[in-house]
Amino acid sequence: MQTLYDHPLSGNCHKVRLLLSMLGLTYRSEFVDVPNEAHHAPWFGRINPLRQIPVLEDEGTLMCDSQAILTYLSHRHAPQWLGDTPETQGYVVQWLSFAANEIGNSLQPARLYYLLGEKVDIEAVSAKGRRVLEVLDAHLADREWLAAARPTIADLACVPYVALAREGHLPLDDYPHVIAWIARIVALPGYISMPGLPPMAN
Amino acid sequence: MQTLYDHPLSGNCHKVRLLLSMLGLTYRSEFVDVPNEAHHAPWFGRINPLRQIPVLEDEGTLMCDSQAILTYLSHRHAPQWLGDTPETQGYVVQWLSFAANEIGNSLQPARLYYLLGEKVDIEAVSAKGRRVLEVLDAHLADREWLAAARPTIADLACVPYVALAREGHLPLDDYPHVIAWIARIVALPGYISMPGLPPMAN
Repeated sequence: MQTLYDHPLSGNCHKVRLLLSMLGLTYRSEFVDVPNEAHHAPWFGRINPLRQIPVLEDEGTLMCDSQAILTYLSHRHAPQWLGDTPETQGYVVQWLSFAANEIGNSLQPARLYYLLGEKVDIEAVSAKGRRVLEVLDAHLADREWLAAARPTIADLACVPYVALAREGHLPLDDYPHVIAWIARIVALPGYISMPGLPPMAN
Repeated sequence: MQTLYDHPLSGNCHKVRLLLSMLGLTYRSEFVDVPNEAHHAPWFGRINPLRQIPVLEDEGTLMCDSQAILTYLSHRHAPQWLGDTPETQGYVVQWLSFAANEIGNSLQPARLYYLLGEKVDIEAVSAKGRRVLEVLDAHLADREWLAAARPTIADLACVPYVALAREGHLPLDDYPHVIAWIARIVALPGYISMPGLPPMAN
């Protein structure tokens, strides 16, 4: 049984919960009380020196970083989620970097500012967030999925903080292609929700 | 013939130049004058809406993001650079995320602050940079390479801005394992230098 070091309100954790659910994999969720600094305890530093969740523990393997966990699980169980040509495999990583850096330093901290009062330069972060949404909306204008003709881990890595953008006071109304893409992900078999995300379709 | 949209002082471009050289691939370098804002010209926005270099153009495929380009080139020419088990493939992406986010938001902007006077919170960025170097040094204390028993694109993605840290006033003297790892990369066949990096061994 694999263990996910997890928090129900973390979008990074939700990326992994989405794939675990879509692949039908069972796991144990180990609650890490990040808002109360549990990730700064010594025991957690031994699991992830970067002190970030999620971490996946699978038969003695510790995998940190949500993008890496998505990659690991796909290689183990469902390589079709990784792209099937050098081009699509490259595009997948392009959007994994986008999730880790561009989204992770805009939509994600904007949400933490309004939800938890985290100290961030909210003007700069919001402007960056709008730019992220513009880039995504333009990219999705003539595509169903970010990196290939089918959903990949690129979509799962990007969707949580995009779909949660409203909690960072960045509503999606001006980004119709982003809204349609979120709806396609919600309609995928195995989609699960979290507070702030759309409920399961039916 | 592939084209790399390139700048000689960019560490992100150098990640790609390193792999192209190690794989013995020829390419045309297209100079993009980033310090003089060439990446904000309309023509470049059509190549990369994020307005970042490097971009690789290969037989009509445009690949943006240095981590994605490393992935694409490895899938096409040298999959041994990607790891060969789900674990090592996951670890590779763990360090690609680390390069895109943790290094890209610490050592990289610290260098731009001192080289180009870029507006950054230099205190915050330097503290983050020291933390990045600590994490790397601890990780490399009992390992030769970041993600596997052999060099992978994880090493190439992380090494330029680490080896250039001194230009961001973050000297490496306190990180002996990082210094030894850089020396191992310098000794790899096909290693090439750039201003600020160690010269080729012999």
